[in-house]
Amino acid sequence: MIEDKNQQRTDLSQLGEFGLIDHLTKRFGVNQPSTIKSIGDDAAVLDFGNKKTVVSTDLLIEGVHFDLSYMPLKHLGYKAVVVNLSDIYAMNATPTQITVSIAVSNRFPLEALEELFDGIELAAKSYNVDVVGGDTTSSQKGMILSITAIGVADDADLVYRSGAQENDLLVVTGDLGSAYMGLQVLEREKQVFQVNPNNQPDLDAYTYLIERQLKPEARGDIKDLLKKLDVKPTSMIDISDGLSSEIMHLCKQSKVGCNVFEEKIPLDPQLINVCEEFNIDSTTIAINGGEDYELLFTIKIEDFDKIKANPNLTVIGHVVNEHEGMHLITRANAKIPLKAKGWNALT
Amino acid sequence: MIEDKNQQRTDLSQLGEFGLIDHLTKRFGVNQPSTIKSIGDDAAVLDFGNKKTVVSTDLLIEGVHFDLSYMPLKHLGYKAVVVNLSDIYAMNATPTQITVSIAVSNRFPLEALEELFDGIELAAKSYNVDVVGGDTTSSQKGMILSITAIGVADDADLVYRSGAQENDLLVVTGDLGSAYMGLQVLEREKQVFQVNPNNQPDLDAYTYLIERQLKPEARGDIKDLLKKLDVKPTSMIDISDGLSSEIMHLCKQSKVGCNVFEEKIPLDPQLINVCEEFNIDSTTIAINGGEDYELLFTIKIEDFDKIKANPNLTVIGHVVNEHEGMHLITRANAKIPLKAKGWNALT
Repeated sequence: MIEDKNQQRTDLSQLGEFGLIDHLTKRFGVNQPSTIKSIGDDAAVLDFGNKKTVVSTDLLIEGVHFDLSYMPLKHLGYKAVVVNLSDIYAMNATPTQITVSIAVSNRFPLEALEELFDGIELAAKSYNVDVVGGDTTSSQKGMILSITAIGVADDADLVYRSGAQENDLLVVTGDLGSAYMGLQVLEREKQVFQVNPNNQPDLDAYTYLIERQLKPEARGDIKDLLKKLDVKPTSMIDISDGLSSEIMHLCKQSKVGCNVFEEKIPLDPQLINVCEEFNIDSTTIAINGGEDYELLFTIKIEDFDKIKANPNLTVIGHVVNEHEGMHLITRANAKIPLKAKGWNALT
Repeated sequence: MIEDKNQQRTDLSQLGEFGLIDHLTKRFGVNQPSTIKSIGDDAAVLDFGNKKTVVSTDLLIEGVHFDLSYMPLKHLGYKAVVVNLSDIYAMNATPTQITVSIAVSNRFPLEALEELFDGIELAAKSYNVDVVGGDTTSSQKGMILSITAIGVADDADLVYRSGAQENDLLVVTGDLGSAYMGLQVLEREKQVFQVNPNNQPDLDAYTYLIERQLKPEARGDIKDLLKKLDVKPTSMIDISDGLSSEIMHLCKQSKVGCNVFEEKIPLDPQLINVCEEFNIDSTTIAINGGEDYELLFTIKIEDFDKIKANPNLTVIGHVVNEHEGMHLITRANAKIPLKAKGWNALT
């Protein structure tokens, strides 16, 4: 939030569209053997042998999905990639390439785009995906990012939302709610800053939550972990739109119901503290908050012993018959219907 | 331009994000054998056997790439698909799937999005591609469309920008400049309309140009045509950003020069008439106008006899040594360097 008055500022129009694309994309090399032709032709060419190709895409809009007043551009670039890779991992596939399209108004200098691309590059390296194409153009207002992720899987490894069976266990990776509370902390600091720009925020008590919001990681480790544990999920879904709404998607597509136990939902201690500070119910945050790039999957009950000792995985409930519906069993043993209060960009 | 005061208007917030996506995408079926899993999971799953996968993406922004005051939404949807397919055809590949992401401000009612999707659906049917995914969200201003096209090709069929050789012939499909002049006509009518909303425009003399602007088609016929003629291009590029700039891209990537003959550039008679009416040089429009979704390719000189009688194909010049540079040879036999005055969204 400290502005450097002497920062360099190169106007985008100095480069022109082709110059800008060249300038921003020359950093991207090719690391994936499946990338035959990357940036520079009408389209990228990929070779997946006889494996299956997996494709997912996301559109991120300034003011709707991100706020540049507390989201550094490098973090935004990183997060935009992670958001998409999470969808590929949710198919139990391995991401291999991405395309990155951006539109910016002329309020952004070249240096800002370079920062954004620093984050994109870092994520691409960290997750070993090639940036193989995209589009760069101007917007009338703000920044728009559109990323398409492409991945690959053996047919036998793919996991869909529709495979959950009665009596399967519901398993979630990591912990939930922290990304949402990180956003609440950042929004509070933004308001403090607007009242008193000289106030230096002390964010030590919130580092984990803020990191979950500003620099989330996708669960690229889960596919390998499950393989090592010799477990193939029966169904899987990315829960970044909120646990509650995504469980409901999974159950509907699998034509099953579920019981989720409140006491089993994994929460970080920092989340519990900050929810107390904000006087918010941590379960509500954990099941509806969203932006946790974690995975929810179901496994056969026979596989429970294989996963029970793993700190990355938590059994939060089980699958029941469709007619029993989808419920949260509270700590007080009340059975309340799950509701999709997931993040909704249209309201 | 006639407003129906009684038109139905369903607010997007009534449906919510998931409801909206379901509503808009339920129309899309699966026709491609390579589509294993379409809309409805975290990602689409595609099976290209052991062929190559081709990927291209474009971002279209209201006020930058399109103006809804004369571009009907159905046409916009159609054109947005065509723009992307053209890039797949330019690899000599066959498009098979697209993903469609849209962001809209709340000024758009549901009925507007349905119209847009009517156009997307029509194009998808017309070009036999499956709509397999996407994202729907809100924007702070205007409409944003991001489409990713995926295609397939045998390795031996793929044509890159980089394969042109000295003495090859430069060939262009269709005719050039009409889409740009169609836009000029529409912009003139918009100004007339703003001055006098009761004026009923007579556009009979401009139908071809307006159609080229509002409902362009991609050259899905060229791959088959060339196969039938037993010609494999040595290089190929989509010239929708303007013939001049795209010839230069192709030459640079192939490390060659070229001579393009002004008198050979294919122009529609309607274009010539309207350029006279507007007092604009038709060659300038044809080589710099852009938005003609035509292909430029090079062939070996031995293949000339195979293509010379075809009305879809025009030889406009030839490839020379890199050191000779890239030139336009005018009707007066002057040799002037080609310049990239292509469409530039950033200036």
